[in-house]
Amino acid sequence: MALEGLQLRSLVKKSGELEVSLAKVAVPEPGPEEIVIRVEATPINPSDLGLLFGAADMRTPRAGGTKDMPVVTASVPEAGLRAMAARLDQPMPVGNEGAGTVVKAGSSKEAQALMGKLVTLVGGAMYAEYRTAKAADVLVLPPGASAADGASCFVNPLTALGMVETMRREGHTALVHTAAASNLGQMLNKICLKDGVGLVNIVRSAEQEKILRDIGALHVVNSTLPNFTADLTKALVETGATIAFDAIGGGKLASQILSAMEAAANTKMTAYSRYGSSTHKQVYIYGALDMGPTELNRTYGFAWGVGGWLLTPFLMKIGPAEGQKLRQRVLSELKTTFASHYTKVIPLRDALRLDVIAAYNKRATGEKYLINPSL
Amino acid sequence: MALEGLQLRSLVKKSGELEVSLAKVAVPEPGPEEIVIRVEATPINPSDLGLLFGAADMRTPRAGGTKDMPVVTASVPEAGLRAMAARLDQPMPVGNEGAGTVVKAGSSKEAQALMGKLVTLVGGAMYAEYRTAKAADVLVLPPGASAADGASCFVNPLTALGMVETMRREGHTALVHTAAASNLGQMLNKICLKDGVGLVNIVRSAEQEKILRDIGALHVVNSTLPNFTADLTKALVETGATIAFDAIGGGKLASQILSAMEAAANTKMTAYSRYGSSTHKQVYIYGALDMGPTELNRTYGFAWGVGGWLLTPFLMKIGPAEGQKLRQRVLSELKTTFASHYTKVIPLRDALRLDVIAAYNKRATGEKYLINPSL
Repeated sequence: MALEGLQLRSLVKKSGELEVSLAKVAVPEPGPEEIVIRVEATPINPSDLGLLFGAADMRTPRAGGTKDMPVVTASVPEAGLRAMAARLDQPMPVGNEGAGTVVKAGSSKEAQALMGKLVTLVGGAMYAEYRTAKAADVLVLPPGASAADGASCFVNPLTALGMVETMRREGHTALVHTAAASNLGQMLNKICLKDGVGLVNIVRSAEQEKILRDIGALHVVNSTLPNFTADLTKALVETGATIAFDAIGGGKLASQILSAMEAAANTKMTAYSRYGSSTHKQVYIYGALDMGPTELNRTYGFAWGVGGWLLTPFLMKIGPAEGQKLRQRVLSELKTTFASHYTKVIPLRDALRLDVIAAYNKRATGEKYLINPSL
Repeated sequence: MALEGLQLRSLVKKSGELEVSLAKVAVPEPGPEEIVIRVEATPINPSDLGLLFGAADMRTPRAGGTKDMPVVTASVPEAGLRAMAARLDQPMPVGNEGAGTVVKAGSSKEAQALMGKLVTLVGGAMYAEYRTAKAADVLVLPPGASAADGASCFVNPLTALGMVETMRREGHTALVHTAAASNLGQMLNKICLKDGVGLVNIVRSAEQEKILRDIGALHVVNSTLPNFTADLTKALVETGATIAFDAIGGGKLASQILSAMEAAANTKMTAYSRYGSSTHKQVYIYGALDMGPTELNRTYGFAWGVGGWLLTPFLMKIGPAEGQKLRQRVLSELKTTFASHYTKVIPLRDALRLDVIAAYNKRATGEKYLINPSL
């Protein structure tokens, strides 16, 4: 019997309207090497929101459709529309990663071996009741792990491991992380504590500071306090961190970090150089919690760099063998280092409720939603 | 007989005052491996001005001292003073590079071989009547080359060659240069034309455009014209340039270049990616003609980098053997590719005249002063 299931889709129309809806789609019989997964857990990551809401102004979304088949619409400003040129008028499935039970399997031995197993997958289109995938692309969850445990196996864990790996490969020995109380930031703390790597956490509130102190973070500085620059410089001197991963993107924070790194480097300099220290200082921007421009005041000499950083190009750079090592580590520490915590579990339809959208689209640190399309 | 000679010095005082003066200094007898050069030509490069005027406000300098021993003073604003912390109250000699005749030589064979020769040197303290140097640190100018021909053998030629070399080493095939009508920019055009490397020149006036067209530049775009973005994108598509060297630093130009590179990359993309193109786009800032903040609007995905670039760390990175190859090329093309043109030749004292300072401190593209301390 052919399956049919709901799939969430995001459509940016040439007319300047975003439309997020549910579509009933047929799930074709799997090919020999394929499986069909009943999705039971798929997180709403910040990296999903960009595709989901595609530059629309989400301050005033409109609810439409029916109770069973809700539709959310919103206006896309002119500038946003230009940036979306390549996806206009194409309904896009959403959802980077997730986990669920294999309910159909193709004829090959590899596919058959997965029948009934709980597997996890990255690759998009997970905000759906069913997802067809190649057998080779999924990982079987270890015994005792639930779909919720395994839903966020890829994006956050590999991003956190990728940061530490990038730090090592580029010759640094400690790192800085911003928006540091996030799920990702907590994982990064666990990795660094376990591996003995110095980590400076930058947060924006006393509550976030407490979250991190409670899991054992050694260096936490609050960017909203008046002594932020002094606190940050002190932590940089203590750890020797010369690379930062910044989820904020806009504003002056990247520049402040580079300035503090330069001040820390200067405490070790013996002679004046008009070109600044020779210590290379690097900030990688991997998010855009602040979509405004990045302002660099360049008061840190010439040995500095700012750039974009993303998981996929990083994985391509290190190659499949090294990537596999990182994935294995995630599976073996799934319920410890890489445990994710969710604020709320919602059915697929609720992802289109305006009040729920308002909550998960806040991108509030420490809050994270999980969709269970099988509810 | 011991020599005595004038040396220009720049002093930033704790009190917040810059003082540029001439000092009469004794020139000790050269050691066995040393020589004494009578400096006959030393350029005022943009890279000299930072040390010379050390963050002082040069809109209102004051003249003092005597006709023979002039002194220039100016105020250093509070913020500038902090940046100068490491050089406060220490008189600094100035002048990166220059050429002249060897008038004394130490006892070693290497030093003796240089006696009476015209040599060129990089290493600071060239704004002086005499400069002691190690014999191994100088290059003998080729036959027919004057001190003026050989005065700028290092900073501009090696910087221009270093840009092309950095482009190659980082996997790019063509490059962009800003403030492109400068002496350095003209050299870069000659190198690229000779080596068959695509070069996009960004200038700020029709006059500068003409300077470059006249020496055969193929791609020149004027950032002050309304169709700048379209012109730049077209030139980037034609050349395939994905790396830029920016002498301006402040403002939005670096970001505009990255945006245009992304637009050029998107003309070759077949599918939408919400993370932008996978083409790595790089801007290196090597100057600060605009000392204001750099503003990055990040509308070019995540495959981008902005960073500082300087000649000395570049030469350290490639190592002495590769550096020597570049120096040999400069000497062998000294009167063609690497010919410098000077607006004016001035005696050392005139470098402290307020009207002369106003002229060379404008950092106007295409204008360049040469000091001849032996006049």
